[in-house]
Amino acid sequence: MDRRSFLKTSALGGAAATTTALAAPAYAQGKRTLTMVTSWGRGLAGVFDSAQRAADSINAMADGSLTVEIKAAGELVGAFEVFDAVSSGQADMYHAADYYFVGQHPGYAFFTSVPFGMTAQELLNWYHHGGGMQMHDQLGEIFNLKSFIAGNTGAQAGGWFSKEINGPEDFNGLKFRMPGLGGKALGKLGASVQNIPGSEVYQALSSGAIDGTEWIGPWADEKAGFQEITKTYYTAGFHEPGAALSLATNREVFESLTPAQQKIIEMAAGEAHQWSLAQFLNNNGAALQRLQAGGVKVMEFPDSVWDAFGKASGEVMAENMGDDLFKEIHDSYMASMSASSNWLNLSSGVYTAQRDRVRG
Amino acid sequence: MDRRSFLKTSALGGAAATTTALAAPAYAQGKRTLTMVTSWGRGLAGVFDSAQRAADSINAMADGSLTVEIKAAGELVGAFEVFDAVSSGQADMYHAADYYFVGQHPGYAFFTSVPFGMTAQELLNWYHHGGGMQMHDQLGEIFNLKSFIAGNTGAQAGGWFSKEINGPEDFNGLKFRMPGLGGKALGKLGASVQNIPGSEVYQALSSGAIDGTEWIGPWADEKAGFQEITKTYYTAGFHEPGAALSLATNREVFESLTPAQQKIIEMAAGEAHQWSLAQFLNNNGAALQRLQAGGVKVMEFPDSVWDAFGKASGEVMAENMGDDLFKEIHDSYMASMSASSNWLNLSSGVYTAQRDRVRG
Repeated sequence: MDRRSFLKTSALGGAAATTTALAAPAYAQGKRTLTMVTSWGRGLAGVFDSAQRAADSINAMADGSLTVEIKAAGELVGAFEVFDAVSSGQADMYHAADYYFVGQHPGYAFFTSVPFGMTAQELLNWYHHGGGMQMHDQLGEIFNLKSFIAGNTGAQAGGWFSKEINGPEDFNGLKFRMPGLGGKALGKLGASVQNIPGSEVYQALSSGAIDGTEWIGPWADEKAGFQEITKTYYTAGFHEPGAALSLATNREVFESLTPAQQKIIEMAAGEAHQWSLAQFLNNNGAALQRLQAGGVKVMEFPDSVWDAFGKASGEVMAENMGDDLFKEIHDSYMASMSASSNWLNLSSGVYTAQRDRVRG
Repeated sequence: MDRRSFLKTSALGGAAATTTALAAPAYAQGKRTLTMVTSWGRGLAGVFDSAQRAADSINAMADGSLTVEIKAAGELVGAFEVFDAVSSGQADMYHAADYYFVGQHPGYAFFTSVPFGMTAQELLNWYHHGGGMQMHDQLGEIFNLKSFIAGNTGAQAGGWFSKEINGPEDFNGLKFRMPGLGGKALGKLGASVQNIPGSEVYQALSSGAIDGTEWIGPWADEKAGFQEITKTYYTAGFHEPGAALSLATNREVFESLTPAQQKIIEMAAGEAHQWSLAQFLNNNGAALQRLQAGGVKVMEFPDSVWDAFGKASGEVMAENMGDDLFKEIHDSYMASMSASSNWLNLSSGVYTAQRDRVRG
């Protein structure tokens, strides 16, 4: 089914257009408070920080004309209910990882991260200059949202396991937390895949409800405390090579703002993306050293497992190609990734290899 | 000489403080136009674009209370005169590469790029979360500037040469354009190093005044037209592994703005950094394909040359260590680089290698 064509002509789209035209003059005058619901527990390392960064920047720049109030997961709606809450107008904006919403549309996976997909920098190249932002906007038109990427964890760690992984067969029957298309790929290896909000993962791992989990990377993982439960940690993963977070505003709300306010939201989101990615990457190095000092064993998946990840990821992608918009986004994304990665290999790839060699 | 201690207590600092206190209330009310002088020819690919991006964002967010007017190099002051013009108050802000101003203070090199230094992402990690921004600000206190990084070219290409480079001895007597500390390192290999503004490089290379030049990377280099003069192109270089551009505002002007306006400038600069880096990296891949189709030969320096680059770069760093602030910035920068690069190698480094292997 071409979901886009269906939804574009639905009652939702028509209602949105009418409301906007009427609401704009009234809204534009005074001071407004916008409620931002998030998928994050209050203060959750890195992810809540990036929502806070975007909100603080909006508030400071808007000089009183806009005040964003952040709600942690569960304070107004649940972690995974933010999308529907903002789409319907129950809340004004959300900060979340858009791949939580592949049930609403599988194309949202590309705006967080897809298995064997782009690094954070490759995603930026595509998003700002290769058509990615326009495709994020196409999805937003369907669901009554105006979305911008507004945070990034960098390449996520492979995760925490109750046992070492020596071959793809070790995933058979493993109860593992992994959202998005990566989770679907892991399911093809026989894993029992679960999607659990970040604030509930520690309890699930601790109780044995799951055998393992990926979360983010050393810094956020250490704060979550997974090293108290198991010491087996895989640093490189296939599933989220550069996971973006999004700030999405209800489309009628966004269109009722002044052009200056709209630009303030867009710029705050963009800057929060950069600031957040740097926060994760800066803090991961020191956190990994602490984890290792505390007995955590840093592991790397063998090639046979990477091969299985690759095969399963390809199958998951292929299964979604029946959706026209998914395929359109996929093809644009893959073409951009090839061009970006070729140049990065020839320039900074060669450079960092030589730097490591020369500096010893 | 400890230049910082000397200048901090100079008349300049005192005058700045007084002017700010008096000027703020008067400035804060009405509409203001800020003149941005730049080191770039009008429309120069990527670099002028990032200045334009920052200015456009400021203007849109400030909603008429601020209007930034951009001047290309030579329209108000020359490409390399922008620093002194803004420091003295002749212009309000500049957009440039801060390593053009190592003559004013060698520490400025770190806020563009130093040989064998950080990639763009490593620089961001340090700048936002490892103390880099605060050190940029320390330099700004000396020179009456408030600076933010506001653009980035990514890893710059090794450059265009009239002959192939087979060993370090081939640099002996070579007339080459390379600014910053990289240029000083090349001088140690016997090159006759020149610093020529971007808009004048084509003429210099074409006339034989120089035997070679680095500029930026395939996209900007192609627009500059160097492939019309020589076909020998080295894609990876040692000198600028992630060259940031800066937006610096005269400090009294900055402090006379409202907090909202100050935040608008900071966020516009930050977002322009991300947008600009993505622009260069997105466009480089396609440009390289066109250059190769037009007969350009893509080369890589041999290990012996990289070794010589490394030795010379280390000597240049050592020569500047007598300056306390340079040493303080250097030590902070290097510690951050080690931590950042270790994590990046273990995560996205392993990932991209596996992705390339699995995808073939």
